[in-house]
Amino acid sequence: MMIDGLQCGHFDRAVFQALLAGGVRGVVNTCGFWEGTVDSMDQIAKWRDLVAENADIAAIAATADQIEVIAASGRLAIIMGFQNANLFEGRIRFVELFAELGVRVVQLTYNNQNDLAGSCYEAEDSGLARYGRQVILEMNRAGILVDCSHVGDRSTLMAIEVSEKPIAVTHANVDSLFPHKRNKTDDVLRALGQSGGVIGCATYRNITGDDYCASVEAWCGMVARTVDIAGIDSVAIGTDRSHNFTAPDYAWMRTGRWTRGVDFGAASAARPGKAPPPDWFTSVEDIAVVPQGLRAVGFSQDEVAKITHGNWLRLYRETFRPA
Amino acid sequence: MMIDGLQCGHFDRAVFQALLAGGVRGVVNTCGFWEGTVDSMDQIAKWRDLVAENADIAAIAATADQIEVIAASGRLAIIMGFQNANLFEGRIRFVELFAELGVRVVQLTYNNQNDLAGSCYEAEDSGLARYGRQVILEMNRAGILVDCSHVGDRSTLMAIEVSEKPIAVTHANVDSLFPHKRNKTDDVLRALGQSGGVIGCATYRNITGDDYCASVEAWCGMVARTVDIAGIDSVAIGTDRSHNFTAPDYAWMRTGRWTRGVDFGAASAARPGKAPPPDWFTSVEDIAVVPQGLRAVGFSQDEVAKITHGNWLRLYRETFRPA
Repeated sequence: MMIDGLQCGHFDRAVFQALLAGGVRGVVNTCGFWEGTVDSMDQIAKWRDLVAENADIAAIAATADQIEVIAASGRLAIIMGFQNANLFEGRIRFVELFAELGVRVVQLTYNNQNDLAGSCYEAEDSGLARYGRQVILEMNRAGILVDCSHVGDRSTLMAIEVSEKPIAVTHANVDSLFPHKRNKTDDVLRALGQSGGVIGCATYRNITGDDYCASVEAWCGMVARTVDIAGIDSVAIGTDRSHNFTAPDYAWMRTGRWTRGVDFGAASAARPGKAPPPDWFTSVEDIAVVPQGLRAVGFSQDEVAKITHGNWLRLYRETFRPA
Repeated sequence: MMIDGLQCGHFDRAVFQALLAGGVRGVVNTCGFWEGTVDSMDQIAKWRDLVAENADIAAIAATADQIEVIAASGRLAIIMGFQNANLFEGRIRFVELFAELGVRVVQLTYNNQNDLAGSCYEAEDSGLARYGRQVILEMNRAGILVDCSHVGDRSTLMAIEVSEKPIAVTHANVDSLFPHKRNKTDDVLRALGQSGGVIGCATYRNITGDDYCASVEAWCGMVARTVDIAGIDSVAIGTDRSHNFTAPDYAWMRTGRWTRGVDFGAASAARPGKAPPPDWFTSVEDIAVVPQGLRAVGFSQDEVAKITHGNWLRLYRETFRPA
């Protein structure tokens, strides 16, 4: 069994089937990057339709227990997530309303500074703003997991400090292994681990690097070095895999509506388009090789279970709104 | 003739009449504090109705020339303004659309950090974010004046640097005269003056202080000291006078929807409610005493004309979208 802490893109029945074939039994989706309140509700509604149409193989999960029940039935548990806090549109009370609608993971900022915090792509990370501090406490209370993947290091450290529950970095890697604005420093990872948080190791080539994409052993070696920093209870999988994305999707994801210009996000002018997946993960179902890859680099069966699903389940149990 | 660089509240015919009686011929209103796109359009529409119903004494002005024509006819020119950039909802292209709808003044941030910049009330001012830099250039192009009154000092200095047109601090005072988060340092005022920008001196007691509220001479003395710092071409009037505001309006203005708690803005726990107006400005029409007050503290007739309306007209001419 595997839980993927973050994927995005246009899911469909074929994607659900491929994930199941790969051994994935739980996945956090991406209901929005830049969307405001109404568009976010629209995305939630679309996801409900999609899952209802595929009820034989998928179900939305609101708690860790539900993930386990859905997984035990051989179906895929969908955990509803957003990569930005725009869905709240500055309204502290909307945190609870969206929690009631099933949202369980919300990233404080996406690629740009907002009214909560600073982003990893700004020239300078503002740290947490007043509203950001309040939203974190409200998410703690309402039962939504705080995600700091695209959040700047400074704001991430402040979020770890302010949050009364452990937080997540659902999809990122280690900056000291592959230097990138999107990746986290050892300091952040140590603070994350000490506070009970979890990082999902990504397979997105732009933030993973060609070396760790060359073989599943290489990638699992990267996971092992992440464990050396954050601890065995704080490392999991968050591939950042996207499904059925085309050029307009990348344009939307990266530039939203905030610029008339070009922004490459984790990509670059030299490599602007879709990054090729890791050599060992060309098809979605190839993720099946990860457990044996982790064993191959020296993890015990128990440790593999923590990395592939146990750590996420533990964190979800501590942070998700009770049923 | 006077132009007031910023007022807020619920305007009505009686307010228009009182302003005209006080010698005011142009005023920047406040169409929104926290409002998003749709609510902002709603406020613009309401203002159009209000002005249409009072077409004999008021008209919306979109250019400096129009302000002069309206003023010459003895009517009040309404300049459409917002105290926050929320009306754009993160959409760079909405700057131009709102300019076409007549908006001429937009403050980058209100009391909280947003996706553009840092606020004077945050523990730390983030400086301009990526989107903020782009919005400023887009406002330059579309013909909307950049206002940094509630913006933090650091973001204000960056806005002066980034903007290709001079900017405004429509309603604030000098921090070295009356220390307050809302007031501007001498450094900011010097940079504002050197770049051709304008500060509107406020009469709002919470940011002016009792001493400068005690008499019109005292307040005009404060204006004279502001001129010493920013220069005679960069100081004007921006009272921050509010009309018909009650407790719920103050609550909305200060806390919007961003907190379940209390925020006092420029007020304080000790003095939370409506601040009394200056002793010399209890009724709106009392503003009529300002020109003679400025003469009394030593300004020439030409200098008084700059402060009361000339500097705003010059700045509006340089920044507002041509007809």
